[in-house]
Amino acid sequence: MNIGMIRAAAQRLRGHVVQTPLLNAPLLDRIAGRRIFVKAESLQVTGSFKARGGWAAVSALPPGTAGVIAMSSGNHAQGVARAAAGHGIPAVILMPQDAPQVKIANTRAWGGEVVLYNRATEDRDAIAARIADERSFALIPPYDHPEVIAGQGTVGLEIAAQAREAGIASADVLVPCGGGGLSSGIALALQAEAPLLRPRSAEPAGFDDMARSLSAGERLRNPQLSGSVCDAILTPIPGRMTFPILAELAGPGLSVTDAEALEAMTLAFRHLRLVLEPGGAVALAAALFRGDLPDQVICVASGGNVSEDLFRSCLSAPT
Amino acid sequence: MNIGMIRAAAQRLRGHVVQTPLLNAPLLDRIAGRRIFVKAESLQVTGSFKARGGWAAVSALPPGTAGVIAMSSGNHAQGVARAAAGHGIPAVILMPQDAPQVKIANTRAWGGEVVLYNRATEDRDAIAARIADERSFALIPPYDHPEVIAGQGTVGLEIAAQAREAGIASADVLVPCGGGGLSSGIALALQAEAPLLRPRSAEPAGFDDMARSLSAGERLRNPQLSGSVCDAILTPIPGRMTFPILAELAGPGLSVTDAEALEAMTLAFRHLRLVLEPGGAVALAAALFRGDLPDQVICVASGGNVSEDLFRSCLSAPT
Repeated sequence: MNIGMIRAAAQRLRGHVVQTPLLNAPLLDRIAGRRIFVKAESLQVTGSFKARGGWAAVSALPPGTAGVIAMSSGNHAQGVARAAAGHGIPAVILMPQDAPQVKIANTRAWGGEVVLYNRATEDRDAIAARIADERSFALIPPYDHPEVIAGQGTVGLEIAAQAREAGIASADVLVPCGGGGLSSGIALALQAEAPLLRPRSAEPAGFDDMARSLSAGERLRNPQLSGSVCDAILTPIPGRMTFPILAELAGPGLSVTDAEALEAMTLAFRHLRLVLEPGGAVALAAALFRGDLPDQVICVASGGNVSEDLFRSCLSAPT
Repeated sequence: MNIGMIRAAAQRLRGHVVQTPLLNAPLLDRIAGRRIFVKAESLQVTGSFKARGGWAAVSALPPGTAGVIAMSSGNHAQGVARAAAGHGIPAVILMPQDAPQVKIANTRAWGGEVVLYNRATEDRDAIAARIADERSFALIPPYDHPEVIAGQGTVGLEIAAQAREAGIASADVLVPCGGGGLSSGIALALQAEAPLLRPRSAEPAGFDDMARSLSAGERLRNPQLSGSVCDAILTPIPGRMTFPILAELAGPGLSVTDAEALEAMTLAFRHLRLVLEPGGAVALAAALFRGDLPDQVICVASGGNVSEDLFRSCLSAPT
């Protein structure tokens, strides 16, 4: 896992993913009391950065691979389904029955063959292993995989270039963090291309396993597996591959409440005209509502796959 | 008014406006039955392309100009207020009392000195002339002004480059059209840089003065001045400067109903994660719902300054 793999992934992704803009809104800066730049991966094809890792992993498979299988509550599902379709091979996506409907529907629309399972009663890994074995499909893990990390790391290459162009010499770079694929990929890219940009994980309160693990110097588990609106980034424990990268390169982790994530969604609508999902808004929420940050912050808005119902609730009722 | 002025404006705008992405959503293409590329000017600073023309015009003023004045229901107001603040001079913005509250509030937030007038009883031009005279301020018209057209035309330079990169050899380019500043600027840029991209105006039904004027070969007036949700693009008659440009360079104009504009907003939320205002969505609506179009269409999503109340109404109610 090194910067060369990220640069190679960027080459393979060219023309297949969006180079998303780095946005700023002075009216948002006033609320935060600092300059905030937002890397809008919600505008990425499939609605999240996962399109990058999915494409990077599928495009690195040996020729003749029969198909791929992935397990995901939604964004990785869409990224892998779309990458498989783009490479002309089938994708089976294992999704929990309680995944957001919009994510299940979109995964199917991208051509993914969705297999639903019950989180409480069924063994996801066993189902995946059986399908992979029966159909000789390659498993694309959501974060603990070198090509997936390399793909997500291309976000960091773009941030480094866009920060240079915007005259941002130093800043904290806040990244929504589930298993750590995006944050570790970005960390590696920034180390090589913009060492004065410091990566930091952002997580939902109560699911801040990465922050606590970084503080403790070892991988610690979350006490629970559900109970936050930030569905995209609820993982049990930092990844085996991603944690050592962040332990070496990242600053202290941050966490925000669900209410803060929802408020960040409202402010992103109002001042940036962006549609974010809760898990995709936690870095922006940290930039807006946390104190221990420098005067300049770049935050990754990692996804925008949100139900219309939830998004409505973030907008003011008629007065 | 020529391509040299647009290129010069692009130089002055560098670092002061966002190079907005050209987005595509295959799931949206399926609905339309054609490929649709969306130039997302809703992500422009101030929430619309008007930041370009405002900056271009203010940056071209003679040194020592005391201040600027503009008349606008909202987007031009914000673009001029922000440009004036960026150049350290005051801006007076004349806005109708019934302009959307979000646009009035944002114009003030950008530092604009808002003067409200009654559309029915007061003479806007007389008020503007008096203030311009008393304070020696320069008037920045919303579209009939070479530097304003040049600034909006930078959208066309970006479309030409992005289409080339995306392998789009030929397409219709649909542009929301009020007075015609954006569409005429884009038309000039495309003529020089991508002559196989054909500009076409998109307007609200009942306010399709540009389409009817292009068809008649002379400037025709709209029968009414209000009555569409597309507040940003309701103008009485095509501009004196903009009309001849479009008469020479544009294809037939298109129009859409308010319901189609609102449906395009819903689909932009769902498939592109974009927040559009009704007037900013008319080109996308035409791309989705009109028949007389080629297989590839680029549409400009020109603005995203929409009230939370109206946006809520575009999202499905809880089921």
